[in-house]
Amino acid sequence: MAEVNGAGIHPTALVDAGAVLGEGVTVGPYSIVHAGVRLGVGSFVGAHCELGLPPGGARPGPEVLPLEIGPEATIRSGSVFYAGSRFGPRLETGHKVTVRERTEAGENLRIGTLSDVQGDCRFGDFVRLHGNVQVGKGSVLGHYVWVFPYVVLTNDPHPPSLHCIGPVLEDFAVVGAHTVLLPGVRIGRESVVGAGSLVDADVADGQLATGRPARAVCKAAIVRDKRNPARRAYPWKDVFDRGLPWQGEGYAAWRARHPDAGAARLEM
Amino acid sequence: MAEVNGAGIHPTALVDAGAVLGEGVTVGPYSIVHAGVRLGVGSFVGAHCELGLPPGGARPGPEVLPLEIGPEATIRSGSVFYAGSRFGPRLETGHKVTVRERTEAGENLRIGTLSDVQGDCRFGDFVRLHGNVQVGKGSVLGHYVWVFPYVVLTNDPHPPSLHCIGPVLEDFAVVGAHTVLLPGVRIGRESVVGAGSLVDADVADGQLATGRPARAVCKAAIVRDKRNPARRAYPWKDVFDRGLPWQGEGYAAWRARHPDAGAARLEM
Amino acid sequence: MAEVNGAGIHPTALVDAGAVLGEGVTVGPYSIVHAGVRLGVGSFVGAHCELGLPPGGARPGPEVLPLEIGPEATIRSGSVFYAGSRFGPRLETGHKVTVRERTEAGENLRIGTLSDVQGDCRFGDFVRLHGNVQVGKGSVLGHYVWVFPYVVLTNDPHPPSLHCIGPVLEDFAVVGAHTVLLPGVRIGRESVVGAGSLVDADVADGQLATGRPARAVCKAAIVRDKRNPARRAYPWKDVFDRGLPWQGEGYAAWRARHPDAGAARLEM
Repeated sequence: MAEVNGAGIHPTALVDAGAVLGEGVTVGPYSIVHAGVRLGVGSFVGAHCELGLPPGGARPGPEVLPLEIGPEATIRSGSVFYAGSRFGPRLETGHKVTVRERTEAGENLRIGTLSDVQGDCRFGDFVRLHGNVQVGKGSVLGHYVWVFPYVVLTNDPHPPSLHCIGPVLEDFAVVGAHTVLLPGVRIGRESVVGAGSLVDADVADGQLATGRPARAVCKAAIVRDKRNPARRAYPWKDVFDRGLPWQGEGYAAWRARHPDAGAARLEM
Repeated sequence: MAEVNGAGIHPTALVDAGAVLGEGVTVGPYSIVHAGVRLGVGSFVGAHCELGLPPGGARPGPEVLPLEIGPEATIRSGSVFYAGSRFGPRLETGHKVTVRERTEAGENLRIGTLSDVQGDCRFGDFVRLHGNVQVGKGSVLGHYVWVFPYVVLTNDPHPPSLHCIGPVLEDFAVVGAHTVLLPGVRIGRESVVGAGSLVDADVADGQLATGRPARAVCKAAIVRDKRNPARRAYPWKDVFDRGLPWQGEGYAAWRARHPDAGAARLEM
Repeated sequence: MAEVNGAGIHPTALVDAGAVLGEGVTVGPYSIVHAGVRLGVGSFVGAHCELGLPPGGARPGPEVLPLEIGPEATIRSGSVFYAGSRFGPRLETGHKVTVRERTEAGENLRIGTLSDVQGDCRFGDFVRLHGNVQVGKGSVLGHYVWVFPYVVLTNDPHPPSLHCIGPVLEDFAVVGAHTVLLPGVRIGRESVVGAGSLVDADVADGQLATGRPARAVCKAAIVRDKRNPARRAYPWKDVFDRGLPWQGEGYAAWRARHPDAGAARLEM
């Protein structure tokens, strides 16, 4: 019986001759890789995935759009990526994610299980979308942004219409679970939106906002650590480092060594 | 290597001899079509789909129920349809949708990625469910109804119980993202429910209702277009036509030519 | 053409030689069963499933963890289970569920379509998760607990952090649709949380709590049946029995015959 999920291209995977796979790439059972896909070295694609769907997600048209996925990606089973997007190194997804066309992301974007990125979106470096997040078309997320489960980024101010005004989340912003961001709102740098909020207006830098509609209640820096009240919980970059470039070193020391990281700012 | 997603039945698709496929039907890689399925001419089924699951969604029983899908359908990858339902022409789905038994729909129903129709539901013509909508058993949606992401139509007034009282959405109704419709509520013709609402009472025709619980705040027709305040945003049928039968012509002119469209009213 | 979803191991299923399948097990088309999986007698696995993913859900590591699934399970199509969990008899899932490592469950756990159990969770007997529920790491659900659609059980009090304090739901608790449980809240025995709530504090036994934040509004036992006001709706165990061990007999009579059912209490 065939080895299941071993390294390499599984015999049941369908990889188009027009796809380019780097060294050491794994493509799992029953996955499909269309023409135009470029998968960086050492990337892993689980079972039942489909990469490089043509625009519209159904019948291929005359043109083949590229899908560029940087090295060391991990794309877990059941995930679907359209052609026409570009991802930096170490992209990582949960299971059953959907990512549509014209999405651009920096380094180490993480997209949780069942999340749905609807295309025309931009992500900085080290953005984390937890499970079941819907990122509407036209959204812009800066660097080191966190979005928690069941958050929806909407873009149509009076649906249905032809308007598409995605929210903007600035560097280090955090959006708590089950929150709705209304079209075009801007979540400021290092600000925090509490779980279950409905955000209908901009949140200034460094604020904690919560409620329906969400309003600033205090500076985020006032929040104390649940188990160690002598310690602040925010800005989180000063107290949390797992999986981030400043891991084991602390943000300040890392930043001093890398003053330009994320300096190629996204146009927002 | 096998052509991926070309026209026709992919060699890896499992199509039961008891299924009837019209001319020009495409069935993608690793998809399954059970006995009793009828797929109209020109329909497209993406990869990793399963059509015609037996009641219960698991082991087949003694009887084979039909699943009738009209011509020119587009069913995107990872979608599951149970047997025992019927869809008019030009059904269109996103990825990974689930549609259970005894669902009936008119023309051009659209069901967004990850949406879940739990069966015993009726849809008029040109209904649009965006992504991640859950339509509980027993729901009734009229013609030209819009339901936005993460909306749940519930049906049990004091769960768990044996009651099943689905909501009713009348023609041209709009339900904003992340809204909960409680069992049996009726959303009136041309009315609009704002994002993030909890609807526990009927909404009269043409109203804009919002909040938790949702209450009518004004006539929907008062809302102005975000970028052109001289223009009304609602009733949306007068200002929006993309993908609708009155596209390029305007609703009034089209209606004058088609006085009976949607006249075969759903029993609500 | 191969029989679709008939009994037995479908020819396209990939079953590792290190998996142990009981008598009468069905594994559907294009499903994958990794080494270390034990599937009890009479179990059914639908199409496009993957059972026994290694920790991390991607590349297998040196150790093979077991995944034990008791007899007569029904795992519907598109579902993913990680290795390192254990389930009692008659596990039942909808489609496209995801269940991560170190999950332990008693008898007849039901997990609805698209639900996501994020690991390190414990479930008593006869727990019912409806569709699209997210159970965060570290959650504990007692016996006969109901959780309705789009509920999220969170665990991080000030995300992102290293804290993981899952909610606790005691026996017979009910959580209504689209509710958020904040980290560490305890939902008392036989209590009911209304749809659309945000629970930031414990709910005492037998209470009906609702709102944002949720507060106790009355004893749950005050709620009357929608169609028969002479009858109470809660405690639900006294009026509802479908699929439960006291079906056709009533809870009191069954309990008298089985004083120790569920007595091996979960440590909460």
